[in-house]
Formats: sequence, C-alpha cells, structure tokens
Amino acid sequence: MQNENSVYIGDKPTMNYVLACLTLFHSGFRDVVIKARGMNTSKAIVTAELVRTKFSNKICIKDIKTGIEAAKGKNGKMRNIGVIAITLSIENRG
Amino acid sequence: MQNENSVYIGDKPTMNYVLACLTLFHSGFRDVVIKARGMNTSKAIVTAELVRTKFSNKICIKDIKTGIEAAKGKNGKMRNIGVIAITLSIENRG
Repeated sequence: MQNENSVYIGDKPTMNYVLACLTLFHSGFRDVVIKARGMNTSKAIVTAELVRTKFSNKICIKDIKTGIEAAKGKNGKMRNIGVIAITLSIENRG
Repeated sequence: MQNENSVYIGDKPTMNYVLACLTLFHSGFRDVVIKARGMNTSKAIVTAELVRTKFSNKICIKDIKTGIEAAKGKNGKMRNIGVIAITLSIENRG
C-alpha cells in the first residue's frame, strides 16, 4: 500500500521521480517522502537534491531516515541492503 | 586529503568499513563521518546501521548530509550522482 505523498524510487530515469515529487507538491502536499532501497538510494539523493536546488527554492530537506533490510542476493545468500526515506518539505515564509 | 575521523566507502566488503568506524571510536574520536558516492551510498547506510545497532548501543546517527556531484558516466556523458555523509556519534550518558 503506497502512501499518497510518497515517491518510490525504481528503475525509471531520475527526472520521472523529480516530476512525481513536483506533481505531489503542486497538488497540495506540504511534505513529500522519497523512499528507496539498495542501489536506488543514490538516485533518491539525486532526486531530492534536484527538486531542492533546481526546481524550487522553497523546498528543503526536512528529515532523512535510514534503515537496513535483509534481502536475498543473486547467489541466494541473505545480505543487508540500505534503505532511505528523504522527507522534502515546503518552507513556510512570512 | 582524508580527514582523520572519516571513513570513505569503496569496493571492499561492508565489514571492513564497520571495523574502520569502530577502530576510530576506540581510538578516541567522539564523531566518525562515513562518506560515500553513487552506488556506494547504500553500503554507507548499511555500515552506519550495523555500527549503530549491532556493535554498540552508545552510538547514534547524529547527522546525515546529502549532495549531488557531476561525474562522467561509462558512455562519456555527464550525469548526476548522489553523495552522502553520515555522522555517527557516541552518546553522552550520565
């Protein structure tokens, strides 16, 4: 079940996720959470930074949470993968 | 130039970096910064979480900073990669 104001990072180009974030902000959400696992954590960071620096000067990174999950690797062995949740928020001005 | 209390995540097994962090704490540093770029950001998160949850109950994540860097991809085109710096800190108790 996906939260309405979450963007899950997958295999699509980064700009798709940047657009998804901006769409959520424009539809009225004050906070948007970008979530990613494993290899996609870097893409989550790039998405957050692009939204924050290139597309709006009112959006800031409010919180970053990290965690760990056990997942089965290609060789069938269990391994730990990192998870990240970056909360972007529209700043209140004035 | 490497900072004395920084651990740079590369291609080695995660446990090497966990050990590097613990060694720095044992040598007297109150803060240890784990730094990674691109694909290694997930390994940085796993390293931080393992140090925090499995090897010490006195160490907490004090700060997480993210950023973006331009790097040349395999096809020669410039692309954005994410960078992360996770600051681990020994909690003061009592």
